[in-house]
Amino acid sequence: MSEVERHRAAVEARIQGWCAALPAGALYEPMAYLMRLPAKRVRPVAALMACELFGGKAGDAIDPALGIELFHNFTLMHDDIMDASPVRRGQPTVHMRWGVNAAILSGDAMLVMAYQRMGADPRVLGTFSAYALQVCEGQAMDMAFEGRSDVGTDEYMHMIRRKTAVLLACALEVGAIIGGAEELEQRAIGRFGEKLGLAFQLRDDHIDAFGDPAVTGKQRGGDLRAGKKTWLLLKGLEAEGGTGALSNALRQPGPLRDVAEMIDALVSTGAREASEALIASLEQEALMELDRLAVPADRKAPLRALALSLMGRVS
Amino acid sequence: MSEVERHRAAVEARIQGWCAALPAGALYEPMAYLMRLPAKRVRPVAALMACELFGGKAGDAIDPALGIELFHNFTLMHDDIMDASPVRRGQPTVHMRWGVNAAILSGDAMLVMAYQRMGADPRVLGTFSAYALQVCEGQAMDMAFEGRSDVGTDEYMHMIRRKTAVLLACALEVGAIIGGAEELEQRAIGRFGEKLGLAFQLRDDHIDAFGDPAVTGKQRGGDLRAGKKTWLLLKGLEAEGGTGALSNALRQPGPLRDVAEMIDALVSTGAREASEALIASLEQEALMELDRLAVPADRKAPLRALALSLMGRVS
Repeated sequence: MSEVERHRAAVEARIQGWCAALPAGALYEPMAYLMRLPAKRVRPVAALMACELFGGKAGDAIDPALGIELFHNFTLMHDDIMDASPVRRGQPTVHMRWGVNAAILSGDAMLVMAYQRMGADPRVLGTFSAYALQVCEGQAMDMAFEGRSDVGTDEYMHMIRRKTAVLLACALEVGAIIGGAEELEQRAIGRFGEKLGLAFQLRDDHIDAFGDPAVTGKQRGGDLRAGKKTWLLLKGLEAEGGTGALSNALRQPGPLRDVAEMIDALVSTGAREASEALIASLEQEALMELDRLAVPADRKAPLRALALSLMGRVS
Repeated sequence: MSEVERHRAAVEARIQGWCAALPAGALYEPMAYLMRLPAKRVRPVAALMACELFGGKAGDAIDPALGIELFHNFTLMHDDIMDASPVRRGQPTVHMRWGVNAAILSGDAMLVMAYQRMGADPRVLGTFSAYALQVCEGQAMDMAFEGRSDVGTDEYMHMIRRKTAVLLACALEVGAIIGGAEELEQRAIGRFGEKLGLAFQLRDDHIDAFGDPAVTGKQRGGDLRAGKKTWLLLKGLEAEGGTGALSNALRQPGPLRDVAEMIDALVSTGAREASEALIASLEQEALMELDRLAVPADRKAPLRALALSLMGRVS
């Protein structure tokens, strides 16, 4: 069993135990439903690994790791309402199944229960709250972007850093604190997580346009058809300067968009190349943050393996 | 200046300072808007008084007191969405002014910011989280009641205890912990707050039917016309046993309800008398909890004055 698998099993066991111990009632059912949907548990696994990286016992970080996964699922529950998403991980979203009010309230209670798992270490609490607020700021930026047609790639990076990347940084920093890391080490592992998280999100967007449908299991260009503002699309639009195939396509209703033509435009504008270069550079920077840490190399191996798997590479 | 006024001024100053220091942006604007609406600040004032009651400095409790007021306003922001309320304290509710999504997200961030003010004392955090969860449970019960016609007075008390009374208990307990109270003293002041909070809610419902419109500034019987399930109405319905003026009135649309007839029925069924007796008994029990505390009487005077003002009596 790999280290990733070992930690994931511990996280799953803790999650299942937590779900089983929930009181009965309409407030708690949606939490168990969402937490039990199959997921990779990247953040809590990363928290346990960061704890061991600095010499701590993973068991000491399991509850805060669960807290971070609860926080993540709370954001999914509320984001799905805001985005009016009917499906999450192949199942009806909480607000589709129980109604919007139940999803608001159950999410609220889930955030309280996330805090209940974080313990009372002021460094852990301060780190968690600061990043939790950034996640809310990222979601606010994302919603503001929907009504705008002039979003640039810099702003997009700013948004996605907050909305998705920082929670991986948070998980790693919390694990590191519990593991006994110094403040500089905590920051370094946080930067590793943030860069890894950014690269992962950019790669995910990249694969939508350039991945192999046989591997991704999704139709190519779904984001493009939906007009979703990804870094890739924004870069192409910037390169076109307001006139071109991408701007034209976006002026049409989704079903009429020629996705193949849009993908060609992403190549001809250089957006594809720029996206690949950015991802590669972020991934390299992330690994360098890990390399530079003054910790024995064998202790870094699990996090390196987790990073490589998120990069779509075999460790 | 009375002790209530002195503490209220300190709370107001802290709230205004907090609002002024908020970052710009759509996430934070609704928080400042809601927090700046005129309010009595009963919970944070109670927290400061409980801190001084046990010999602590009110200044040491001001941030957790602010945290509790933030939590209270977070619940108002989300409850107003769930209840589809257009107006709060004479002003448009947050979701009416900024939209439902902004109100969900801003409330979420407000809950995180409430925790940021609570500090890292495990007793304070444990107390706050446990009560916060009870508030969510109370709201869940309240929503479940809407779809039912068989809610009894016992269930109603169970709901209202969680939804509104425990947050006053929470404020007092948090202040008491910071002030140096022993665990038994903490529990006692919590019971004082819970009983006081219950009495206050029941009195509020009672006044809707039997208060003097010249004093309340509201039309008599607004809750009755709306069919709002208060303890008073539920008690009357229980006494009628399924047939009678109240049950008949509830089967009609609100505008057709004869409020004067419903009020008469509350008197003839004995619901009015029962409600008055229950309120008086809870108020007396609350004051007895305070009396029994082994603390010099002069230190209790501010909380006694606060309690009497909530009971509509002059101290």
